[in-house]
Amino acid sequence: MTILNRAQEARKASLILAAVSSDLKNKALEAMAAALEDSKAEIIQANREDYRRSEKADLPGPLLKRLIFEDEKISQVIEGIRSLVSMKDPVGETQMARELSPGLDLYRISCPIGVVGIIFESRPDALVQISSLCLKSGNALLLKGGSEAAETNRVLSRIIHDSTVKAGLPSGWIQLVETRSDVNDMFRLNEYIDLLIPRGSNSFVKYIMENSSIPVLGHSDGICHIYIHDDADLQIINPIVLDSKTQYVAACNSVETLLVHKKIASSVLPGLQKVLEEKSVELVGCDRCREIIDVAPASEEDWSTEYVDYKLSIKIVDSLDDAVQHINSFGSGHTDAILTASKECSSAFMARVDASSVFWNCSTRFSDGFRYGFGAEIGVSTSKIHARGPVGMEGLMIYKYKLLGSGQTVASFSTGENEYTHKPLEENLQSDK
Amino acid sequence: MTILNRAQEARKASLILAAVSSDLKNKALEAMAAALEDSKAEIIQANREDYRRSEKADLPGPLLKRLIFEDEKISQVIEGIRSLVSMKDPVGETQMARELSPGLDLYRISCPIGVVGIIFESRPDALVQISSLCLKSGNALLLKGGSEAAETNRVLSRIIHDSTVKAGLPSGWIQLVETRSDVNDMFRLNEYIDLLIPRGSNSFVKYIMENSSIPVLGHSDGICHIYIHDDADLQIINPIVLDSKTQYVAACNSVETLLVHKKIASSVLPGLQKVLEEKSVELVGCDRCREIIDVAPASEEDWSTEYVDYKLSIKIVDSLDDAVQHINSFGSGHTDAILTASKECSSAFMARVDASSVFWNCSTRFSDGFRYGFGAEIGVSTSKIHARGPVGMEGLMIYKYKLLGSGQTVASFSTGENEYTHKPLEENLQSDK
Repeated sequence: MTILNRAQEARKASLILAAVSSDLKNKALEAMAAALEDSKAEIIQANREDYRRSEKADLPGPLLKRLIFEDEKISQVIEGIRSLVSMKDPVGETQMARELSPGLDLYRISCPIGVVGIIFESRPDALVQISSLCLKSGNALLLKGGSEAAETNRVLSRIIHDSTVKAGLPSGWIQLVETRSDVNDMFRLNEYIDLLIPRGSNSFVKYIMENSSIPVLGHSDGICHIYIHDDADLQIINPIVLDSKTQYVAACNSVETLLVHKKIASSVLPGLQKVLEEKSVELVGCDRCREIIDVAPASEEDWSTEYVDYKLSIKIVDSLDDAVQHINSFGSGHTDAILTASKECSSAFMARVDASSVFWNCSTRFSDGFRYGFGAEIGVSTSKIHARGPVGMEGLMIYKYKLLGSGQTVASFSTGENEYTHKPLEENLQSDK
Repeated sequence: MTILNRAQEARKASLILAAVSSDLKNKALEAMAAALEDSKAEIIQANREDYRRSEKADLPGPLLKRLIFEDEKISQVIEGIRSLVSMKDPVGETQMARELSPGLDLYRISCPIGVVGIIFESRPDALVQISSLCLKSGNALLLKGGSEAAETNRVLSRIIHDSTVKAGLPSGWIQLVETRSDVNDMFRLNEYIDLLIPRGSNSFVKYIMENSSIPVLGHSDGICHIYIHDDADLQIINPIVLDSKTQYVAACNSVETLLVHKKIASSVLPGLQKVLEEKSVELVGCDRCREIIDVAPASEEDWSTEYVDYKLSIKIVDSLDDAVQHINSFGSGHTDAILTASKECSSAFMARVDASSVFWNCSTRFSDGFRYGFGAEIGVSTSKIHARGPVGMEGLMIYKYKLLGSGQTVASFSTGENEYTHKPLEENLQSDK
């Protein structure tokens, strides 16, 4: 099957999936969980094959580690699927109900987006997690996993497809895309694919954003800042900066640049240097910073670099205004924090920094779907439309308008025979209505 | 100034505009209205110049007519601006409030998208309407109007810019783009422009969707359907079809294809033919339709043609399923209606037809922001993300997450020292917070 055929089949399945009952979707999720449970041995065997091949191909250690999908991880994703069963169906919610005129009622009802294209790197658990979220939200999907996990992905997608179709879902609702050329062709199928969600390296996401006319939900950079205002509570500075930088350096929400108000710089930088260097964090600083602590000079490039490593750039600023300006110039709109004792200053900072998450007196590492309490996270988005920040299942949803009439014509409103009332309606639209 | 400089200036202004108070925005709207009032003579003079030039250049009649912007129309847009003043500020609304842990509170707050690029054809009233909506919602904008209205647009954008900046808005928040090459360059400025809203011909919108990596809010086609089920109330058929087709044929929400259940075809088609032909509607039909009424044959192409004219294609279908399938294959996801006495059938139709608006027993012409009670309409979107259907001011909005802490680190949650509570919070985040 060509990628065009696959996309067409996914689109066809999506139209059925959009109207499937909550019960059937939950039944399919249960079937998926049971089938994965039953096929553990097969999955592990495929995964070990991938591992051996990747090891031979000298895949870097961290990627090799993320590739492993054995007993405990499989049990975790199965648990994740089962927890989705008990969640409320996001399809069919009444978001607005309005009487346009007596007997002419307008409802805005949540519905799935349609067909989602998901491209992710090595982690096979992502495949299961994403498939189950798409299923629960009624979206069909085209999946492209990393080639290092080819065998595992093939086995997983077959098990997921077959078990759920047997449970009653439309055939072809989940499709595995395997070749790089198919992925490139996929970017042009905007007639069939409604949204792309890339989960991978920054350069990879950037490439997709620039090469597809299909909307993309994702983030290419996570250049996060902490600004320490002159009245910041000294007790919280070190723990928060340390946590933001070192709690998990590879995360997109870890801090890359520290901005320090000139008035407080000499009292906080020496202590910060000590605790950060104890954790092997390499520091680079602006000229004024280097007058206070002995660190390497920061280049202009440092301000727009996402280290994803034990490295932090430090700049001294004259004011909150300067900090905001620096962040809006060099930041990536991901997560930026202010440390200050003043509610007014925090409020100004949070209103004026253009980022999906703006924090006051806490670690940038909180910027995450699980910590925000979204249950599942589709990804983090730095886009300015649809969904921004950590995105839960609502990122896979859109709505449609349903207008229920009794013979009304627009002409009868032009002539004055009928009049618009535009009154809110109390009742929700029942899904059987 | 190059288009890049203009976009950068708009971006800079947007960062200030996003945090401007409701009072200042309303003051600026009042100033805009007053300045337009005071400059009526100048506007009319510029508009007459455009009209004379366009008339000489043989601009088609309907476009010439849309170009006219004189006393009454100017008064109407001024009234529109003033009605915006009394509307609630869409910026700063609390959409979600959740305690992540005691003393660590998460808020989701509405905010402007940022910089919007708007490209529209001849109607100068659109310029004023769009500028005032962007102002109220805190968005900066780059505007490109039709060249036929060049003089009018130049005068209007100058008056709007100068009066609002004098009232306190950041300079450069609204910028006029004048040349075609600047518009093409604009499509590549995704670093500075967050959303494109084209209002114009289908081919024009399609061109933009295919040639820009900036998200587009709009619709390229309006191929709307009415499906007459076998149990439809005979009384409502003719009025609804007539209204949907002829109440305003140039509208994107007028019907282009009629689908009729085979069981009811012979009893409804002759009457429909009579009333439609009385209104000079040209009919084309499938073979089975032509066995009942004497109309020209419909070609395969007819099913995917938006006539925007006194023409209607008719197809006989075997079932509701067939009707749904036809619509999902040939429709444009704009507006599709079913006429049926059965709640169950209407419910199945509305769940399964993939369109932004799905109607039961009423005219497709109701698909419109004003009729839906949205006050102002930014446009109609057939996109599957962000905003769909008639889009009011909420289409210009996104949100940011604000997290208010008191020294929390993520590490303290990993160690079990702190725990996530994820409790809903009662209070809204005050805008001064």
